[in-house]
Amino acid sequence: MEIKVAKSAGFCWGVKRAVNMAVEALEKDGRAYCLGELIHNRREIERLRKLGMDFIEDMDAVKKGDTVVIRSHGVAPSVIEFLKGRGARVVDATCPFVKDVHEKAMKLEREGYPVLILGNPKHPEVIGIAGHLKEPIIASTVEEVEALPKMPRLGVVCQTTLNLNFFKEAISLLALKVKELKVYNTICSATSIRQRETRKLAGQVDVMLIIGGKNSSNTTKLYQISKSVNPRSYHVESKDEIDPAWFEGAKSVGITAGASTPAWVIDEVVQFVKDLGKGGVLSGRGVCQTAGGEL
Amino acid sequence: MEIKVAKSAGFCWGVKRAVNMAVEALEKDGRAYCLGELIHNRREIERLRKLGMDFIEDMDAVKKGDTVVIRSHGVAPSVIEFLKGRGARVVDATCPFVKDVHEKAMKLEREGYPVLILGNPKHPEVIGIAGHLKEPIIASTVEEVEALPKMPRLGVVCQTTLNLNFFKEAISLLALKVKELKVYNTICSATSIRQRETRKLAGQVDVMLIIGGKNSSNTTKLYQISKSVNPRSYHVESKDEIDPAWFEGAKSVGITAGASTPAWVIDEVVQFVKDLGKGGVLSGRGVCQTAGGEL
Repeated sequence: MEIKVAKSAGFCWGVKRAVNMAVEALEKDGRAYCLGELIHNRREIERLRKLGMDFIEDMDAVKKGDTVVIRSHGVAPSVIEFLKGRGARVVDATCPFVKDVHEKAMKLEREGYPVLILGNPKHPEVIGIAGHLKEPIIASTVEEVEALPKMPRLGVVCQTTLNLNFFKEAISLLALKVKELKVYNTICSATSIRQRETRKLAGQVDVMLIIGGKNSSNTTKLYQISKSVNPRSYHVESKDEIDPAWFEGAKSVGITAGASTPAWVIDEVVQFVKDLGKGGVLSGRGVCQTAGGEL
Repeated sequence: MEIKVAKSAGFCWGVKRAVNMAVEALEKDGRAYCLGELIHNRREIERLRKLGMDFIEDMDAVKKGDTVVIRSHGVAPSVIEFLKGRGARVVDATCPFVKDVHEKAMKLEREGYPVLILGNPKHPEVIGIAGHLKEPIIASTVEEVEALPKMPRLGVVCQTTLNLNFFKEAISLLALKVKELKVYNTICSATSIRQRETRKLAGQVDVMLIIGGKNSSNTTKLYQISKSVNPRSYHVESKDEIDPAWFEGAKSVGITAGASTPAWVIDEVVQFVKDLGKGGVLSGRGVCQTAGGEL
């Protein structure tokens, strides 16, 4: 069985950077808080917890002298102010691409545009972007964009992991509603490349595995894209969730992973599928035996 | 037979204004040149010719003291300069909505954006807009937009009579290619309203008549829109081109007209179709007799 791993699978640059910054802070200070999950990946979270990281949702726990890591998604300026006011040491691991969205959104507001954020209003990145604006408008579905009124001017930024097709459709709808439309395409190139590569790979293989947290927005989007091209697409968090029956009759398997999936989790899945291909695991589990040789 | 005439049929405000300005100039000066056809309608052109208007393509004929009318489509600033240099009296009947496109295009250029004009590069309005820019880019088809390279910044304006669907598609493609996209939707509301009303009317009637010059860009677009909704759509310049056979079995007829179609041409067509409905013309021509009563 041929295994094709997407070149763009796994940690993006911003996530790698945030994990490195968190590990450095832990090495320096022994322990640190992180506001929310550093990345949407349970196994990586467990690893960091063992290194001394405490993941908190409520900032009330933070006291003077504590180290607090801001994850790659970023936060509203008021959060940083609050933490500094408490006397905490803030390690701001906000992805520079997300910081760029903050700056562009504020620039649009300064230029007098009402600002629309295309993205999930519950996603921390979008909450962080909105926190930089006076009166943000947020839309996450085509219906919400359609429901917007006609406007003389509008500025647009988007969640860095937005689905490209939604972005395209939203902008085409806005072009007719808005007389002067200024759009910053802030979908980060890692996201675009990963989505495009997933779509292509899904069309070339018999089975697709998409690895990443079930609560990871960008992984879920990769899964949706893959599924739309190849019905034999499966979203797993780790090798333990893989059902050998999925590979029955398959001659090729494509593997990709979200931006928050560590390399070692991907490696484990690749190795597991390789072992399946050798027939060992398959016959051992008594599944798919007829196809054993071929796999 | 029911006849429905689109409310938005015929002369738009800018064309009405240009014709009035031309007639005033003729009343004042006795004769005047017009650069190109004042409007794309042969019968109106004939009427103006009788009033003393001379339609020219070559400006070499212009001498000191001549009156020259600039039609609603507008021209490049170099044309006005040339005419003034010759000592001509220039009556600038450029539609104020087109002047607004010139201003927006120049503003984008001043702001450092490469400027894309969405429109037909051979249309005088687009030639006029392009004449206001140092390095205009022009695209008139989806293929041309797709062929544009990725760009960090791009400003967009469009021909005031652009097809709404092309505009929408072009902008959605550009949103993915361009990091910072500033779009002025300069499709004039008369055009949008006329196109929307045509699409709606075409879906409600058995036969559609679209009146206007065969060389009129906006009329041709109305015809294409109508035809896509209702295969029994016909583009005519006047009542003389109507074939009574088109109405066989029809219970309703929709009528619309391009921005350059005078009211009297529309009235003639409406009267002609009414007479068909009474059966007079139909039976007289010996066409469609079986349906005569019903029509």
